[in-house]
Amino acid sequence: MSIKITGTGNYIPALIEKNESFHQHEFLNADGSDINHPNKTIVDKFKAITGITERRYADDRLTSSDLGFLAAQKAIEDANIDPETIDYIICAHNFGDVKANTIQSDILPCLASRVKHNLRIKNPKCVAYDILFGCPGWIEGVIQAKAFIKSGMAKRCLVIGSETLSRVVDKHDRDSMIYSDGAGATIVEELEDEGGILAHETASFTYDEAYYLYFGNSNNQDLCRDTRYIKMHGRKIYEFALTNVPLAMKTYLDKSGIDIKDLKKILIHQANEKMDEAIIQRFYKLYKMDVPEGIIPMSIHKLGNSSVATIPTLFDLIRNNKLEHHSINKGDVIIFASVGAGMHINAIVYKY
Amino acid sequence: MSIKITGTGNYIPALIEKNESFHQHEFLNADGSDINHPNKTIVDKFKAITGITERRYADDRLTSSDLGFLAAQKAIEDANIDPETIDYIICAHNFGDVKANTIQSDILPCLASRVKHNLRIKNPKCVAYDILFGCPGWIEGVIQAKAFIKSGMAKRCLVIGSETLSRVVDKHDRDSMIYSDGAGATIVEELEDEGGILAHETASFTYDEAYYLYFGNSNNQDLCRDTRYIKMHGRKIYEFALTNVPLAMKTYLDKSGIDIKDLKKILIHQANEKMDEAIIQRFYKLYKMDVPEGIIPMSIHKLGNSSVATIPTLFDLIRNNKLEHHSINKGDVIIFASVGAGMHINAIVYKY
Repeated sequence: MSIKITGTGNYIPALIEKNESFHQHEFLNADGSDINHPNKTIVDKFKAITGITERRYADDRLTSSDLGFLAAQKAIEDANIDPETIDYIICAHNFGDVKANTIQSDILPCLASRVKHNLRIKNPKCVAYDILFGCPGWIEGVIQAKAFIKSGMAKRCLVIGSETLSRVVDKHDRDSMIYSDGAGATIVEELEDEGGILAHETASFTYDEAYYLYFGNSNNQDLCRDTRYIKMHGRKIYEFALTNVPLAMKTYLDKSGIDIKDLKKILIHQANEKMDEAIIQRFYKLYKMDVPEGIIPMSIHKLGNSSVATIPTLFDLIRNNKLEHHSINKGDVIIFASVGAGMHINAIVYKY
Repeated sequence: MSIKITGTGNYIPALIEKNESFHQHEFLNADGSDINHPNKTIVDKFKAITGITERRYADDRLTSSDLGFLAAQKAIEDANIDPETIDYIICAHNFGDVKANTIQSDILPCLASRVKHNLRIKNPKCVAYDILFGCPGWIEGVIQAKAFIKSGMAKRCLVIGSETLSRVVDKHDRDSMIYSDGAGATIVEELEDEGGILAHETASFTYDEAYYLYFGNSNNQDLCRDTRYIKMHGRKIYEFALTNVPLAMKTYLDKSGIDIKDLKKILIHQANEKMDEAIIQRFYKLYKMDVPEGIIPMSIHKLGNSSVATIPTLFDLIRNNKLEHHSINKGDVIIFASVGAGMHINAIVYKY
């Protein structure tokens, strides 16, 4: 018996927001002071660190649950299943449905209920709930699906990561350039097959780290102090991730019994190219190895950081040969790994 | 082996908001038209239906995660456990942390991370996540804890329901009188004992029902249309609950193998007294029985409807002999049952 991902789908918004569009923004330091560099310099430096040249923003008429629904439709079609046979719909996000040009998160009802409504699923035994777990939410949803399957409470789950970060950014903060919109969805189910989820692990670091990502005020001190946006202590996150993620990944891989040399791909949360590369370098260093060519597929250059959506979207692109120079074959061992607000870290060792 | 609740705690805010305080409100119909009755008549009718005479509002300095933390502290103390041994912190809510006199939900980081931070738990293996599942969120959190325990992923979980509905009400809507603030917390763990969770079941009705509870505009058409509040189609919810909850409860009880005559208490979500009584009447009617005296403890008269917090709070009050005329003894079989936004229904048959 194995627990496998049998279908994937994504929704990548059509609207492309290029780095050049930030040349006219008024960026400020966190204390409201001017940044003494021209915008072009700021944007070029941003690109050098994060790798991001453009990102996607959702159409004003769509919300996060709409994106999740559109990705879910494709995952269901890809798995070739009857949607009425789904036991759980698990939707991971961070801000709920935020309508364009408004500041409230709409999470009543939960987004999974909306997705199920839009999928026109009638079966009341299909349980629809949301999980809030920062960027690692989609991976954690898959781990929860595994728990339901292993404990006999489910056979087939739809796990979605969907987010519209463009709706919660502070336009006066350079970090706003990182964020993107999108959704990825997967069908997770029990199969009479080998492979699938070999090992998984999760950690929540909250003692000092709970507020490394937080909901805070604009850098523009003249804006309403009651309106808050996604904010981060980038330097702290970078150091935290580099200290903890490689070690965690090693623990999880060793637990699976897989030899590092048999690892084919690492699908890491697309947070920031330089940070992701540094994590992978440290990870291989723990095994006294160089990083193998082509081990980390990256989508961040064109898609930005869409939080919970990055990994399922990346996985879907690779499965469908839509990411240049990357492919995946039956029997390949991969790692899904993420880090984000909470601060949470998780990973799944998976045999395709 | 059994899965049991070994500790409970609640946080009931000290601030009492009596029905009389609504005599000065300007209540309007959903279309903005005047209600052609004096406020006293409106409030008296409200009390006759819901049973609510007063409700609790959280201190302005506290948010939902603070309430959850305060309840969690007591549950940990009650269970007499080392907080560092907790494997999961599951926090159920509907609107996140809403600061007093603001309109944004703050869910970054998730509330479970904040609670863990405040509990000063260091162990990173304690996974902290939030579940959004309407009022049945606390019950669903317990069911998820069971899944983690049964699948070998956990031994001990902290499940919290916390809510500050007073922060998201439309003051021009009569339904605003229903809502209350509070938190309940429980330790759920594996024991070498009999009893505990005997059966459970969940259903999500989303085909027609997804938006019976929703985030909508004020009845006062002059207020900003971009600001939204908790709203409900009360009549539809009433009919839905009466049609579906008694049948679901019967299915779940029969599944547990327990004879209806051996049922000692039903701890039903404190939504509305008349609705709760009607549900229980229909439930017993399915067994061709009259409702036994004292089967449904009620806290709604004094505590209102605090969503996810009502059932764990009620359970804690009974366990500690703080609810007049109600007590519970080892071996007693009880049902926890809830219905709410989604629309979700769930229940647990539990041997104390």
